[in-house]
Amino acid sequence: MSHIRGRFSKDADSRAASYTASIHYDRRLYAHDIAGSIVHARMLAHQGILTEQEAGTIIGALTEIREEIERGTFQFRPDLENIHMSIEARLIEKVGDTGGKLHTARSRNDQVALDMRLYTREATVEAIAAIRGLQRALVDLAEANIPVVIPGYTHLQRAQPVLLAHHLLAYFAMLERDAARFRDSRKRTDVLPLGSGAVAGVAYDIDRDFLAAELGFDRVSENSIDAVSDRDFLLEYLAAACVCMMHLSRLAEEVILWSSAEFDFIEIDDAYATGSSIMPQKKNPDVAELARGKTGRVYGSLVSLLTVMKGLPLAYDRDLQEDKESFFDAVDTLLATLEVFTGMVATLRVKPESARRAVSQGYLLATDLADYLVKKGEPFRGAHDAVARLARYATENGKTLEDLSLEEYRRFSPRFEEDVYRVTVESSLAARDHVGGTAPGRVRHALADARKTLEGKTE
Amino acid sequence: MSHIRGRFSKDADSRAASYTASIHYDRRLYAHDIAGSIVHARMLAHQGILTEQEAGTIIGALTEIREEIERGTFQFRPDLENIHMSIEARLIEKVGDTGGKLHTARSRNDQVALDMRLYTREATVEAIAAIRGLQRALVDLAEANIPVVIPGYTHLQRAQPVLLAHHLLAYFAMLERDAARFRDSRKRTDVLPLGSGAVAGVAYDIDRDFLAAELGFDRVSENSIDAVSDRDFLLEYLAAACVCMMHLSRLAEEVILWSSAEFDFIEIDDAYATGSSIMPQKKNPDVAELARGKTGRVYGSLVSLLTVMKGLPLAYDRDLQEDKESFFDAVDTLLATLEVFTGMVATLRVKPESARRAVSQGYLLATDLADYLVKKGEPFRGAHDAVARLARYATENGKTLEDLSLEEYRRFSPRFEEDVYRVTVESSLAARDHVGGTAPGRVRHALADARKTLEGKTE
Amino acid sequence: MSHIRGRFSKDADSRAASYTASIHYDRRLYAHDIAGSIVHARMLAHQGILTEQEAGTIIGALTEIREEIERGTFQFRPDLENIHMSIEARLIEKVGDTGGKLHTARSRNDQVALDMRLYTREATVEAIAAIRGLQRALVDLAEANIPVVIPGYTHLQRAQPVLLAHHLLAYFAMLERDAARFRDSRKRTDVLPLGSGAVAGVAYDIDRDFLAAELGFDRVSENSIDAVSDRDFLLEYLAAACVCMMHLSRLAEEVILWSSAEFDFIEIDDAYATGSSIMPQKKNPDVAELARGKTGRVYGSLVSLLTVMKGLPLAYDRDLQEDKESFFDAVDTLLATLEVFTGMVATLRVKPESARRAVSQGYLLATDLADYLVKKGEPFRGAHDAVARLARYATENGKTLEDLSLEEYRRFSPRFEEDVYRVTVESSLAARDHVGGTAPGRVRHALADARKTLEGKTE
Amino acid sequence: MSHIRGRFSKDADSRAASYTASIHYDRRLYAHDIAGSIVHARMLAHQGILTEQEAGTIIGALTEIREEIERGTFQFRPDLENIHMSIEARLIEKVGDTGGKLHTARSRNDQVALDMRLYTREATVEAIAAIRGLQRALVDLAEANIPVVIPGYTHLQRAQPVLLAHHLLAYFAMLERDAARFRDSRKRTDVLPLGSGAVAGVAYDIDRDFLAAELGFDRVSENSIDAVSDRDFLLEYLAAACVCMMHLSRLAEEVILWSSAEFDFIEIDDAYATGSSIMPQKKNPDVAELARGKTGRVYGSLVSLLTVMKGLPLAYDRDLQEDKESFFDAVDTLLATLEVFTGMVATLRVKPESARRAVSQGYLLATDLADYLVKKGEPFRGAHDAVARLARYATENGKTLEDLSLEEYRRFSPRFEEDVYRVTVESSLAARDHVGGTAPGRVRHALADARKTLEGKTE
Repeated sequence: MSHIRGRFSKDADSRAASYTASIHYDRRLYAHDIAGSIVHARMLAHQGILTEQEAGTIIGALTEIREEIERGTFQFRPDLENIHMSIEARLIEKVGDTGGKLHTARSRNDQVALDMRLYTREATVEAIAAIRGLQRALVDLAEANIPVVIPGYTHLQRAQPVLLAHHLLAYFAMLERDAARFRDSRKRTDVLPLGSGAVAGVAYDIDRDFLAAELGFDRVSENSIDAVSDRDFLLEYLAAACVCMMHLSRLAEEVILWSSAEFDFIEIDDAYATGSSIMPQKKNPDVAELARGKTGRVYGSLVSLLTVMKGLPLAYDRDLQEDKESFFDAVDTLLATLEVFTGMVATLRVKPESARRAVSQGYLLATDLADYLVKKGEPFRGAHDAVARLARYATENGKTLEDLSLEEYRRFSPRFEEDVYRVTVESSLAARDHVGGTAPGRVRHALADARKTLEGKTE
Repeated sequence: MSHIRGRFSKDADSRAASYTASIHYDRRLYAHDIAGSIVHARMLAHQGILTEQEAGTIIGALTEIREEIERGTFQFRPDLENIHMSIEARLIEKVGDTGGKLHTARSRNDQVALDMRLYTREATVEAIAAIRGLQRALVDLAEANIPVVIPGYTHLQRAQPVLLAHHLLAYFAMLERDAARFRDSRKRTDVLPLGSGAVAGVAYDIDRDFLAAELGFDRVSENSIDAVSDRDFLLEYLAAACVCMMHLSRLAEEVILWSSAEFDFIEIDDAYATGSSIMPQKKNPDVAELARGKTGRVYGSLVSLLTVMKGLPLAYDRDLQEDKESFFDAVDTLLATLEVFTGMVATLRVKPESARRAVSQGYLLATDLADYLVKKGEPFRGAHDAVARLARYATENGKTLEDLSLEEYRRFSPRFEEDVYRVTVESSLAARDHVGGTAPGRVRHALADARKTLEGKTE
Repeated sequence: MSHIRGRFSKDADSRAASYTASIHYDRRLYAHDIAGSIVHARMLAHQGILTEQEAGTIIGALTEIREEIERGTFQFRPDLENIHMSIEARLIEKVGDTGGKLHTARSRNDQVALDMRLYTREATVEAIAAIRGLQRALVDLAEANIPVVIPGYTHLQRAQPVLLAHHLLAYFAMLERDAARFRDSRKRTDVLPLGSGAVAGVAYDIDRDFLAAELGFDRVSENSIDAVSDRDFLLEYLAAACVCMMHLSRLAEEVILWSSAEFDFIEIDDAYATGSSIMPQKKNPDVAELARGKTGRVYGSLVSLLTVMKGLPLAYDRDLQEDKESFFDAVDTLLATLEVFTGMVATLRVKPESARRAVSQGYLLATDLADYLVKKGEPFRGAHDAVARLARYATENGKTLEDLSLEEYRRFSPRFEEDVYRVTVESSLAARDHVGGTAPGRVRHALADARKTLEGKTE
Repeated sequence: MSHIRGRFSKDADSRAASYTASIHYDRRLYAHDIAGSIVHARMLAHQGILTEQEAGTIIGALTEIREEIERGTFQFRPDLENIHMSIEARLIEKVGDTGGKLHTARSRNDQVALDMRLYTREATVEAIAAIRGLQRALVDLAEANIPVVIPGYTHLQRAQPVLLAHHLLAYFAMLERDAARFRDSRKRTDVLPLGSGAVAGVAYDIDRDFLAAELGFDRVSENSIDAVSDRDFLLEYLAAACVCMMHLSRLAEEVILWSSAEFDFIEIDDAYATGSSIMPQKKNPDVAELARGKTGRVYGSLVSLLTVMKGLPLAYDRDLQEDKESFFDAVDTLLATLEVFTGMVATLRVKPESARRAVSQGYLLATDLADYLVKKGEPFRGAHDAVARLARYATENGKTLEDLSLEEYRRFSPRFEEDVYRVTVESSLAARDHVGGTAPGRVRHALADARKTLEGKTE
């Protein structure tokens, strides 16, 4: 007996049916499918294509079916391969031939396009809300740690002192772009495809504006052939999700680095870390590591759908059914990661002394010392060289910059004077006093702006 | 001797230098780099950090350097690894120590971010213009072939008759979304990073709004750490380019299919096809095939940069240098494909009779016949079954639908009457008379709208 | 209420647990996990680390647990996040503290590596068997249609006549390479990681050769750090699966093309096609389309895992947990696609007349006519030009090559003589009489070789 | 004027020509193309299709052409779009009509397939040699630092002590699999496609075994349709290159981490690091960062070609021309990265004291202490808990394990005795004394084996 796909194997003659079935994942669309069908029935009545009574019967039954599904009493028959057929069959079971009339002026192609757009619109709203949640946690953490200084890194080498709050606001800015991308993508998601029929439109006097208004769409699609074969809105969500996961993978990397024994800037709350099965001393940043890994998964979903779409002739091809599973997976992964990061960030414990120690040891004021010499009249190149030699001297003698005597300083440039000791971490921070700089006043201002953004934008 | 990389091999001790060099591809940024430097010099003078005379000297020399590069007289020294160093070295060669002052209040990290944003903004404008060009060619072709009917396909099976113009407008709609995506992405590209320094901001009294205004940026970046490590704008361009290439790959597929002997709906102009080296009768759709293939290349560029960015700690890491080559390649590929498609579409010759023949033979009126029966009172399911049996009968007897006698029709449903012969390709088209449908009046209206869009939007 | 992830949402404080859990997908590994544990217990007893009685107790209980899982009576507790913990907890429930001793000289890191290798080895064997199945169906179809001639295409333009059997054998050759790749990958899969502990090895006197022999591994891993962090064997399976799916996507494309009204070379059996919900005349090649689409899914899985692995420091990181879901999905997709294609190919109906018609109409003998002229003494370039003009003349006059009179032939070259009529489809096929050519004798020989390959290789 | 593609733009009517041209990248194949042509000419003479004199003339001219190209005197004409046409035109220029006869019994399709196989075979040999070079550098570094102990990490948390040599041998093992994959792929690369013609084979009495023998191929392709459309060998190289680059990205990550101020285990030689333009104290691991970034580039190449191939109908399609540029780029990137890493590893300076400090501070003996208690009779769970509490106590009191008094030990378990002080880093290493473990004797043995592998395998 094979253990590879044990549960999934089907007997030979049902293989094709099983291969083409989607009910195990598209049942997630039940509410969107029913909502679309109810509005379709209402429109058909409004246009006199169905009688009001027929529409009422259909809508009543669909409402019951939704309740059956949500209560868990709905019987999913294995021979009905997708959610649309499952609901339709139950509808006919309930109300007979009248149920069949729901299919008037509609095809599976525009129905499935509608369901996916309703779903994606909802997923977009939720993504933005989840992004807002994580932004809030970052701002909270930043505000609670205003005085904390950490090394700013380039090339993972300590470079210049920055406020932790400034560093955290970098992630706020990334997430702000993510939210904007999702918001923009919605313009192209929020378009009604219903009424496109199989490919050419439908031969009934339908009212697409009615449908759009009832379902809350911004506008109706302008070309039936495009409408049934367009999956751009999924690709655009996926691309935005990839970039957002990439941002989270960078945050994850820093959480992992910073909670290592070597960096030791933060401690992850027990709820977001795990111990080791054999190493009793360990506390592992599992949530951050998994999020970093799950980035690959969302990238994979984007590649998957881009590949599916490549070179497909118009209009609908069955390949398009492959738009769903990896999309659903990406939606779930993105939302879960944003939510779990919100909790992880909210409970991070910062270790200010440890961070401060790293700032002092790293010659992070070298840029400021070079600037000091430049302001005293030294050309940039000479100032840079003098400080580079000074830093090397200090390293070799195991001294920090503040340990050096004026006499030592002056060995490297006669322009060094007593006021060199006024070049401090605090002076370094304060000097970067422009929009985008790490000066404490600027950072407080940026935090206030961030707070305002969060309050104003409540999508 | 190895032929694998013959020209590229370097002697052992210069391998690392060659590995890290970017001058062979970033020289493309020369104009953006010089434009940024000129404005930076102007700002430094405006703020009193440089004297007006120093700034004037620098700007004059930079202007000369740009001319040297454009005239081809600039000497690219092999030991200067990137375009920034090449220009800087030449500047100092020309004006001495004053040239070194250009580096005040700037680092390589914000300089390179600036150059890439200037470049990408330009590439975005060009992408939109090229999209407009192809849209225009599609509308021209559609208008020139208003009466042409082709089979609308689903699953690559003939489904229902549609106007060729309607089909072409599906591509217009796809490209319209592409243009919108590029336009939206520009909001996040058009942000000034200069003034972020290496990571923390700069310790000078700079005026970033001055810089932004002079360089035509919408706004300044809000966080220095983010500004030097953000490459979202490249990813967003690449994602939009992938979707656009995907659309072109679908058009390519149809051009290839339609110019095959089997479909025979169009003939590609000789300028966009090639012959065979050994098969004298061949006319191959090479441009369309290459475009379909080049889709992979642009997908690859997106995957490449997403991979580069995954898990990078803040702020600048040298990995980010790998943002350029595949991005440049994607920009070139997208623009070239749009342009060559514009020419190919403009010169396509449509074969209306051949298309019409395919429409007649394919039982494409079956949906309309089922609708006919439904309107005569037959429930949908019964109507569908009757027509399915009818179509099978016709196939087996080698007849088209119009060949069938009324008696034959009535074998499958007594509701068929003499007026069944009024179900024609023309009636089928005319019946789909709603926004998005293929009714000729609707399509003419859609063409007029498309024309207006093209006139109004001249980015 | 949100419908997006309705069923999946967890209350706030269990979010991290739910995020890190893998039991919903790694339960598939139960049999491999238990097999590994049984052999580990046996080894511990063999080395005197456990008593024989302890080992016996453990092995008995594990055997029962396997039966419980297979009978469906095993209770998966929601608080036990993975299959290893689920089984271990049940073991301790059954046999008390003795159960805990199974963890001696083993860590989760080498345990999970072992399970995945056992699983992958099995998946590799099944992939090869499924490939063999499809190859068999292709050979059967080829043998049943030995005389059938179709156009060989380049650029989707008819090029030269080939035997259908020759064309089908191209897929046989592709699949043969696929099988070889899976076979080669097994060399790197079939390596025992157990005994690597968490990272450094284990501090017990273990016998890894005993473990390897009992579990049927070719050899033991040579470095503990590598063994717990190596996922190459998954990547290698995925790369082989991508190429195999790519081959199947090409076959799918041809099945779709060939069953279109335009090509009409084959008819897909009803069991592998579907009808349309609104177009009664349609027969859609759904299985082929879905397979073409699912190619994207397997590509996505490879990209996903490549991304996960990029830049991970040694040794085990939790990111590696993300190796499973998309791998399992790729295994299922590949096997299901191979199996359903086997059925689809086995039931394809070939339409020889229709194919033959395409061969006659397509000027496919042009190459042979040029060769004819070359053999009569015409230089290649001149022969090529003459035949190109001839083909154009025939097209414009709506004639096939065999319709042309000798007089007409001679208008394009005086070297044409009466024997030009001996240039036929049959002569064209027969002339390509070398290994790899489409001459009927060669193809029969290739079929016999293929049959031998299938008989000899019964992995 | 546009700066986007300044150098590349062509005037309108030559756009298609420029779009389809490949000469700017396929000229790299000149030597392979000429070698193939020479052997083809020799075969044609051997079979009597050309006279010996004709063949001699052709071969002489081709040899001259190769010299012209290598001396740089060859004029590449812009109107000849690829390397094959460039060489062929020059051949005819040199020897007149006789040159045209080289095209007998050959098409562009099998010619280009041949060239790519010759190139890939060479690239495969070079990849294996470059892998061997890096393995050698790793073994040298390991041997030179036999006594150095570092923390073994899991989850980037210090876990257990390991020998640096053991850690380096993990990379040796990864690279060993890489070499094996390249070696295996060669079996499917080393196949002669020549003689397949355009698609059906050739209508001449050719000797393919002669061609294969002369060009050093293992065997001839078995199906002409497959042979002209098969690019598996490129995909297989690319997949192997992706995994190899992934390995290098992990090594890069560790080089970056280890040379950070926080880890400080190594110092990169100046030749493989750079300074900062504004931060005088910096020493950046640029080569390692770039290599990590270039991983994305090679992943992108694989995705690119997989996408190109998806869904292509047989046999040759022009899309296949897109197999080259990104493949060449991947070959160059892989070889350059391996070579530059060889130099970087060879010149790394290890800091043993700093590594040892990390080992002492990290409670890395906790596993051994738990094992100690287990061996004294404590059940595993209890031992694990006791040591976890002990580690927490030590952390909170700022003590290392060796600082603790026996009395303190016994607070956590009465089984601790005086011999607990014999649990040391050295005892921990020594205890892992099995194949794959970090015991010094085992590691020395593994090094000796590695050395033997390097000597024996000199592909």
